[in-house]
Formats: sequence, structure tokens, C-alpha cells
Amino acid sequence: MRPIISRTERAQMAMAFEVCAWDKPGNVDRCHDYPDTKLEHFLASVIFCRSALEKAEQRKGSVGALIREATILTGRHKGGNTHFGAFILLIPLIMGGTIRDASEIVRQTTIEDALDFYDAFAHTTVRVRDEDELDINDPKAKEELIKRKMTFFDVMEYSAPHDLVAREITQGFPLTRYTADLLITHQNEINPISKVFLKLL
Amino acid sequence: MRPIISRTERAQMAMAFEVCAWDKPGNVDRCHDYPDTKLEHFLASVIFCRSALEKAEQRKGSVGALIREATILTGRHKGGNTHFGAFILLIPLIMGGTIRDASEIVRQTTIEDALDFYDAFAHTTVRVRDEDELDINDPKAKEELIKRKMTFFDVMEYSAPHDLVAREITQGFPLTRYTADLLITHQNEINPISKVFLKLL
Repeated sequence: MRPIISRTERAQMAMAFEVCAWDKPGNVDRCHDYPDTKLEHFLASVIFCRSALEKAEQRKGSVGALIREATILTGRHKGGNTHFGAFILLIPLIMGGTIRDASEIVRQTTIEDALDFYDAFAHTTVRVRDEDELDINDPKAKEELIKRKMTFFDVMEYSAPHDLVAREITQGFPLTRYTADLLITHQNEINPISKVFLKLL
Repeated sequence: MRPIISRTERAQMAMAFEVCAWDKPGNVDRCHDYPDTKLEHFLASVIFCRSALEKAEQRKGSVGALIREATILTGRHKGGNTHFGAFILLIPLIMGGTIRDASEIVRQTTIEDALDFYDAFAHTTVRVRDEDELDINDPKAKEELIKRKMTFFDVMEYSAPHDLVAREITQGFPLTRYTADLLITHQNEINPISKVFLKLL
């Protein structure tokens, strides 16, 4: 009997197949690199994050700490940010196993998760809005989080109006569900991932 | 401080970068699939073998058993053989850490390793020579191994005249060393992996 394929491995395959899918205009794919972030950095990132995803699957650790851990692990390559946004989605999904349970896990996050999540930013190079009361590059932002008693869920809800990923995990992963359904619909066609990518633009 | 990059992760990167390197005439690369074995099968294989490589790094298990385990794990995709030859090279290299120690590990293998290695074949679809006294598809081959007291090293030495991988691990990994040196020489050029691939043809 073949061993089962774990959630961790499914997540890693999703990341690897996504970055290799072509043609994805404006993104890294198997035919296009960014100047400083290449296909190989994304593939290294997929390999490097493994143990953080496994901990999520075994429910060893909480959302914020595991996003931080995955970010630190992938930071071992020199290609800048590769999967920070992906981890925000994948860590709760791997922990929960279903969209419903993942949403519940996000809803039950704590201030500690919010603080760990802000720490995670220090280990990556994500573009952020220039003016924000909770600017992640402002050392006082964490004090502000504590003062306002903001959980990870609260931070995501605060960001949701202008952030696709934050909207996704606070509103029940609607685009994730839609995308998964589209992939199933197109699975037997040529290049299903890039086809779905283009549909979502 | 960034965590170190483990031998397991280096091996996985080698496998992932190799299959994506293009142009490799006659082989799967990011622009060429085989009819039944596609780029994605190789990437899945890289992800799936992880725990067997980790055991090799931790010296939990012997050469034959770990090659079999890696083969069973990668057999969870439906693309046929992807990394069987790679595992024969990588398992001893990961266990040993250096070519010298890897060679010594291969030299010290047992009959048990040979039997486990023959088992591994059952989990893959590797091309073999039509006529061979030790045909891996012949159920009596294992009895023959026991009768002749052949270790994994002996089996590899038996195959060396007509098998590149067997030659490699019984003769001190000469082509592995040469290839690694070529990669270092060409590391700052465009597409170093495919450049080295073409040099080796």
C-alpha cells in the first residue's frame, strides 16, 4: 500500500506547481525570472519551509509562530520574499484541514499570534503601504497592538480592505475555494494552473 | 542567525534545479515532458522523498533500506521512475557527507542491503538489460544473491561494466566530483546546470 500524501506535501506541491506554471504574466514562472528572485529561489523556498508546515499539520505551534518559522526557514535563500503571502493562507489551511476549520483557527488567534506575525515581517521584504498606523516597520506598532488588544484575526481584518490575503483568511477563503474548484474543472486540460491564473486576473 | 541548510535540503535542491535546468536534450526539463513523466512528477518526487533523505542524514537505516524507502515514497506519484538512479547516489552521499565517507559506507554494505535494493526495484519501473543472471525481475535472483553472499557493493560492482551509476558508487564517485567541480567553475554564468549537462554528453 502506498503511504498517504500528507497536507504538508500537498501544500509543497501546490507551491512548486504554481511557480512552474506558465505563462503567468508579471510573475515568476518557468520561463520568467525577476532580476533578484528566480524560479530556483521559489523552489528552494518550497523545500526550506517543510518543517514549519509539518508542525502546522501536527498542530505543534500557533498560527503567528508558524508563519514566522516558515518565513525564517525560507529566508535561507537570497532571493527575497517568495512565499510570505502563501504561508499566511497555507498555515491555517494545513492546521485545519478544511476551510471551515482553518477559518475557525484564524478566528481564535491571540495577541501573541499578532506579535509573532509582526516579527515574521522582519525576516522578509514584503511591500507595505506607505502610511499606516500599524506600519510593520514602525517599532512602536507592536506596543500599539498590545494597547489595542489586537489579535492576529483583528490585524487581518484591519488589513482586509486593502489586502487580498487578509481578506481571504478573514472571510472564509472564498477565492481559495473558487480557485480550487476552477482547478478541478480544468484539471484535464493543458496548463490548467496558468489557465486558472489568467481567469483570476 | 539563519538556520543551516541541511544535506537533505541540498540534495532536494540538486534534484529540483537539475530537472528544471534547460535545455537538456532527450531529458525532462522545464520545457520538455515525456508522455507519461512530466516536470511535475519530478518535483513531486523531490518533495515525497524527504523523510528517507532525512533518515540517511541522521544515519537511521542502511543504504539498501533507505533506497527502498525513498523509492516507495516517490512511488506515490503516477509518473513512473523519476529519481531511482539519483537515490542510489544520494543516499550514501547524504549518509557520508563526503565522497570518501560515502564510498566507505557503500563498501561496508551487507547482503541485507542487496536484498532491500532488489526489493526497491519492485516499486519502480527501471529499464534493465534483457538477459542477466541476476535479473531483478526474476524471483530467484534474491536466492542467488544469498547463495553467492553478494553485498550491495558486490551487486554494484557486478553491474559496473554496463551501468554508469553502479560504476560511480563503486569507484569513488569520479563523475560526481568532476560534475561538482564543473558546476563551481560555471556557477556565475547563465544556465550553469544545462551547460555542464551538455559538457558531460
